[in-house]
Amino acid sequence: MKRIATIFLLAFVAACYSFAQQALWEKAPVTSPEVHADHTVTFRLRAPKAVRVQVVGDFEPFMADLTETDGVWTYTTPQPLPSELYSYSFIVDGLKVNDPSNVFRLRDVGTVSDIFIVGNGTADLYKVNDVPHGSLAKVWYNSPTLGASRRMAVYTPAAYDSNPRKRFPVLYLLHGMGGDENAWSELGRAAQILDNLIAQGKAEPMIVVMPNGNVDLEAAPGEGGNGFVRPTMELPRTMDACFEEAFPDIVKFIDKHYRTIPRKHARAIAGLSMGGFHSLHISKQYPEMFDYVGLFSAAIMPRIDKLPALYQDFDGKLSVQFSKHPSLYWIAIGKDDFLYEENVEFRRKLDRSGYPYEYFETDGGHIWRNWRIYLSTFVQKVSLSERRD
Amino acid sequence: MKRIATIFLLAFVAACYSFAQQALWEKAPVTSPEVHADHTVTFRLRAPKAVRVQVVGDFEPFMADLTETDGVWTYTTPQPLPSELYSYSFIVDGLKVNDPSNVFRLRDVGTVSDIFIVGNGTADLYKVNDVPHGSLAKVWYNSPTLGASRRMAVYTPAAYDSNPRKRFPVLYLLHGMGGDENAWSELGRAAQILDNLIAQGKAEPMIVVMPNGNVDLEAAPGEGGNGFVRPTMELPRTMDACFEEAFPDIVKFIDKHYRTIPRKHARAIAGLSMGGFHSLHISKQYPEMFDYVGLFSAAIMPRIDKLPALYQDFDGKLSVQFSKHPSLYWIAIGKDDFLYEENVEFRRKLDRSGYPYEYFETDGGHIWRNWRIYLSTFVQKVSLSERRD
Repeated sequence: MKRIATIFLLAFVAACYSFAQQALWEKAPVTSPEVHADHTVTFRLRAPKAVRVQVVGDFEPFMADLTETDGVWTYTTPQPLPSELYSYSFIVDGLKVNDPSNVFRLRDVGTVSDIFIVGNGTADLYKVNDVPHGSLAKVWYNSPTLGASRRMAVYTPAAYDSNPRKRFPVLYLLHGMGGDENAWSELGRAAQILDNLIAQGKAEPMIVVMPNGNVDLEAAPGEGGNGFVRPTMELPRTMDACFEEAFPDIVKFIDKHYRTIPRKHARAIAGLSMGGFHSLHISKQYPEMFDYVGLFSAAIMPRIDKLPALYQDFDGKLSVQFSKHPSLYWIAIGKDDFLYEENVEFRRKLDRSGYPYEYFETDGGHIWRNWRIYLSTFVQKVSLSERRD
Repeated sequence: MKRIATIFLLAFVAACYSFAQQALWEKAPVTSPEVHADHTVTFRLRAPKAVRVQVVGDFEPFMADLTETDGVWTYTTPQPLPSELYSYSFIVDGLKVNDPSNVFRLRDVGTVSDIFIVGNGTADLYKVNDVPHGSLAKVWYNSPTLGASRRMAVYTPAAYDSNPRKRFPVLYLLHGMGGDENAWSELGRAAQILDNLIAQGKAEPMIVVMPNGNVDLEAAPGEGGNGFVRPTMELPRTMDACFEEAFPDIVKFIDKHYRTIPRKHARAIAGLSMGGFHSLHISKQYPEMFDYVGLFSAAIMPRIDKLPALYQDFDGKLSVQFSKHPSLYWIAIGKDDFLYEENVEFRRKLDRSGYPYEYFETDGGHIWRNWRIYLSTFVQKVSLSERRD
């Protein structure tokens, strides 16, 4: 049977050479990256004219030189890498480029990096394993408060389709500054984490709603009406209370269009960095809405003189929120995070008032490695389907 | 309000410089590509150490040299470009690289190219315009015939959510060899084309189902259980009748899980290249299933000695199919397509038997530019919601 495809392929490739775009479409000359059985990783780049080629990535060592043989530059990590999803780029004579042999890439704000996974550990949760898979939809909703049609990502667990009458709890999962509605499903591997933990019986089947927290953008870069505009971190209306004020529009849309359990006990909200900030302020602004709150490397307060009303009376609103005994108030941060001290201060505030919370501290800083771990940990701590209230 | 974001951003960027990954995450030094008001396009690359920088793309001229000033290489197209979605890469001293200033890219088989859109014409259909938007979901379905769980993309029009009791017709839209369930929504801009044509009243609201036609793969590269394996054109079981035999599993799944009009008059099938081949053979194998058939740059027959049963009795099955008077049998191909002669032969066969079909011929070859045009044209020709049979 292989002949069928081969003959067709040969005819096709032959024909392509007469097309303008043929040069855009060719085989990779080398294999890169190659994750070996012992978890060392080899990078390769064919660049016969290059003088210096380096690899830069989020693993040890942070930067390394490749060596050349017959025009192919090669580097193998000196040590096995711990199980993780890694990012890297090449630097060829000072020019940072993606690995032309690797088609798997992720965009973080305005930078596209090549990625690979080292398995047999933490990162097995980030892989597509042989388990029932949920669906991931990119959905447009109308926000009357913002007067805009906006895009969000919605994960529905495998059980959602197989139990057409069952209702499900909902986790609202918020991205950070410079992110968008795709961030958690792409950089955060949210669908894979949920699929795997649900299959292992460690997390309940739940809907995960990932809206866009930048109210100036209707959608992720390239997915909205402003076209292919390069994303930046500089978005003026990301922490001015608009997103928080309009949040009930999202909950109403989800409760209307999905088979949710439309009750506080079956709703969680969590987010990273700016999304943690959003989760904090949304959950205390609407104290009847969420029973579980997750703050991942969260910003606590905007640093401005004149606070929008929604951010005012912080202590009073917290007091109301905690008087209703949220089932879980979960704070996670890495030791090297630039928001670490701010979170120490916030925990002191909670301690002074005797508000119960759980605290989870990791190594590392303000990075996706931590946020994937925080999501994986948080979703195992919520019992949203349990009937209470 | 801008101060909030700016202060947060400054703290954040400052902190990032202490992280290993800071170098992966930085501002683009130059703007590229820049589409000017007159539709000429400027490309820029900062590469002070490069000796030669070229741009290669699917526009005229196919390849051009950039010129350097102060380390920044620049090229502006000599002529305005016609409205289209274009692909390109840079070649830096012989090494093909993506444009580091452009985060918008598309993968075609194993090659990732940078893209941009020139509007005010054909390509306005490929943009996200201010119209109601449908949803795009990546869904897993079970195929009992193949004994596998497989992934597909499903577009539901905006009206699907706003009319929760209405039933909708379905277009099954198939990719070519080397493609996957993401090809039509990414390279083919299917969601944008449907959103725009539906909003203009030129196409009916319809569900568009985009399955994966490579039965050896459960999902697109990186989205399935085999992990981050670089895609190639060499897939053994793409034209061996397995996909066609298992196709009713897909139709049953869709009719079960979506509000479809589960009738022949409300079903279309179309595909490009191998997907045209699949559409041809599926539609004659199941002559009660589809009332509209679209063959875009279609392969007609596998070039093998021993045909699987599904491909045998071609003429007899065609005769049955046409005896049932399909509402539209639509053949489209470009003058330079390597499958052009094969399509001439096929049309002769249809002519000899007096089978009615429509024929649409364009310039160009076996390229996405044509397939986006064929999809845009085909969906305006189907009247799936009309009640007949």
